[in-house]
Amino acid sequence: MGIIVQKFGGTSVANLDCMRKVQAKVEKALASGHKVMAVLSAMSGETNRLLALAKEWSSSPDPAEMDSLVSTGEQASTALFTMLLKDSGIKARSILSHQAQINTDSQFGRARILNIDKENLLKLFETYDVLVVAGFQGVNEDGRITTLGRGGSDTSAVALAVAVDAELCEIYTDVDGVYTTDPNIVTKAKRIPKITYDEMLELASMGAKVLQTRSVEFAKKYNMTVHVLSTFVESPGTLVTQEDESMEAVLVSGIAYDKDQVRVTILDVYDKPGIASSLFAPLADAGVVVDMIIQNTSRDGHKTDMTFTVPRGDLEKTMSILDGIKETLGGGEVLYDEDVAKVSAIGVGMRTHSGVASTMFTALHNEGINILMISTSEIKVTCLIEEKYTELAMRTLHDAFELEKDGIRC
Amino acid sequence: MGIIVQKFGGTSVANLDCMRKVQAKVEKALASGHKVMAVLSAMSGETNRLLALAKEWSSSPDPAEMDSLVSTGEQASTALFTMLLKDSGIKARSILSHQAQINTDSQFGRARILNIDKENLLKLFETYDVLVVAGFQGVNEDGRITTLGRGGSDTSAVALAVAVDAELCEIYTDVDGVYTTDPNIVTKAKRIPKITYDEMLELASMGAKVLQTRSVEFAKKYNMTVHVLSTFVESPGTLVTQEDESMEAVLVSGIAYDKDQVRVTILDVYDKPGIASSLFAPLADAGVVVDMIIQNTSRDGHKTDMTFTVPRGDLEKTMSILDGIKETLGGGEVLYDEDVAKVSAIGVGMRTHSGVASTMFTALHNEGINILMISTSEIKVTCLIEEKYTELAMRTLHDAFELEKDGIRC
Repeated sequence: MGIIVQKFGGTSVANLDCMRKVQAKVEKALASGHKVMAVLSAMSGETNRLLALAKEWSSSPDPAEMDSLVSTGEQASTALFTMLLKDSGIKARSILSHQAQINTDSQFGRARILNIDKENLLKLFETYDVLVVAGFQGVNEDGRITTLGRGGSDTSAVALAVAVDAELCEIYTDVDGVYTTDPNIVTKAKRIPKITYDEMLELASMGAKVLQTRSVEFAKKYNMTVHVLSTFVESPGTLVTQEDESMEAVLVSGIAYDKDQVRVTILDVYDKPGIASSLFAPLADAGVVVDMIIQNTSRDGHKTDMTFTVPRGDLEKTMSILDGIKETLGGGEVLYDEDVAKVSAIGVGMRTHSGVASTMFTALHNEGINILMISTSEIKVTCLIEEKYTELAMRTLHDAFELEKDGIRC
Repeated sequence: MGIIVQKFGGTSVANLDCMRKVQAKVEKALASGHKVMAVLSAMSGETNRLLALAKEWSSSPDPAEMDSLVSTGEQASTALFTMLLKDSGIKARSILSHQAQINTDSQFGRARILNIDKENLLKLFETYDVLVVAGFQGVNEDGRITTLGRGGSDTSAVALAVAVDAELCEIYTDVDGVYTTDPNIVTKAKRIPKITYDEMLELASMGAKVLQTRSVEFAKKYNMTVHVLSTFVESPGTLVTQEDESMEAVLVSGIAYDKDQVRVTILDVYDKPGIASSLFAPLADAGVVVDMIIQNTSRDGHKTDMTFTVPRGDLEKTMSILDGIKETLGGGEVLYDEDVAKVSAIGVGMRTHSGVASTMFTALHNEGINILMISTSEIKVTCLIEEKYTELAMRTLHDAFELEKDGIRC
């Protein structure tokens, strides 16, 4: 008998009424002849309540204790939801991370799943029709509870789906799928019926909060089709899956943006081999994710400027690291600008077709939006612009690539 | 290096301020050269909040899920308290039941501890100076979380103290010790400096809520001295320990009461061998704890009346069982009276001295209090009286045995 994994986010299990809707989804899957693994987040607001409590107790709470604390959120939601199922006569039980043996490394707060005890879970399915698994959490080799970081329940769900060889991994959330861009900004935004893992990864890394990046990486690695659906409205949702011909025919699938950026520039660094490494290795060691990087052409053959972007939360750390190494780099002044944003056009179709970048530049230019930095990948073109133009740029690009018409067909 | 176990109840860890007072107790024990095992309850009110949540979700919540839910209370309090300790540079970590391997049977909601992984805990003390253990919870053989029933953290603490061979088990609570009787009713009630396990058991079974009965049984079985102390005021507290000569010299240690009683009478049951067993075996099987039992002298040599007391919460169950068996018993009408209460005089001294019962009956008689039933044990005399006289009876007996003067010396 096939297994379906269904993941329900915090808003989907926010209260008793919501949980009844979730129960209906589970029962539907049961009725279709499947066993169900329901992976739950904490009830909406609960994780934030616990984080606030920790902040009251300590200005820098111990990470291991923090994970033990916040993991109570999923423990509570899984217990409550299982009570509902059992009251309806469904053979169900809750499973916590130490019971499922969802083994992770020991990076508390952002642990990575190493392996899951598949045999144990399959054995439990001999007794139960529904396993209600606490998402977001794992255990390290010492049996201590870890958490997977914000949105980690998505990753739990996909990893569990892979572990038990599920037919499908459904991610239920409060939106009805993945959109061509943020519908709060671009009213013409459309639901995307089908998207590749790679496109989804680019969208997720740009702040589209439908799926956690790690979960998409997992799904891609093991080729697990993920179906993004709404708990509250009937909609075909979005299938996140491997590339097929119909998807390549779409030039641009979506427009993403990210306002959580700072542009940092170091003036007058030596233009010689090893400099980039001396600069970026310490940042990487400190966990700062550097995104766009530009090294200007050397003006005099000896010195150049380096410009890059980092998340705003890492600015302080970045500045302090640069302070320590700028002498070695031969660098002068360090400048930064927080009033910037990234906008990106994303699509697997651009791998085989040119013209996306120039369409993008022209569209932005026509609106008088200055491009501060550019970076491109196989399936993405990103421009850094002044933050105040973000929404205008998104609407402009959504129009330019005719995304309201299912995108440009090549 | 010796280990001290310190247990802190819900009011002791109710908020940040309270936890700082708890931290001071732990630091004092550390300063005295000990390792500390701090066993915590959930923050005051948290368990009730979770129970209320479960009641909203289900009229009869699944017991296993209930335990998974309510055990989050201790998981949160231990994590928060450990954060505090770590912020003060103390080598501490939280320990949950599945980490300590506090193994219990599978009676969810009222599980009994079977064994504790001593080696694991002692090994952790090589790394940590303080282990902050979640009280009230265990794991069954399937790794599912169980709870030990109301007040179960006391039992956790004593069992852990026994397991790691602690020098002492301190139970911190919101009262400063065990009293000769309820100070809210008898203002002259005095703190008892030292009490035997057996006396404490009788007091606890009569509703003195300072220690859970199971914890005292455990302490007695393994001869672990338990020190009841207040988190909030400095006081020598009460030592619960094995009997010594000084304790035998006290005739009566305390006066206890219990209003949670119903008197049930079945009229006209056969007066023949096996009848008592036919009556009480089904009640025992249903988990009804029958306390006082009186069988009247047979009036005609064939039939008699049986009277006994059960907890009020079990009345409905009791009546339904009696309904099913009264034919077999030859019984007639079943009567019950909820307006009754038990008062008891307790003391190991009465084992070797007579006169306690008659002093008690005389004192009650002098106040015009009618005695409905009497039962005696080696160290206790109990009278069932009309409930409305409870407080009067307690004050009268407290005076009669001169408990305000350290009790009657024999």
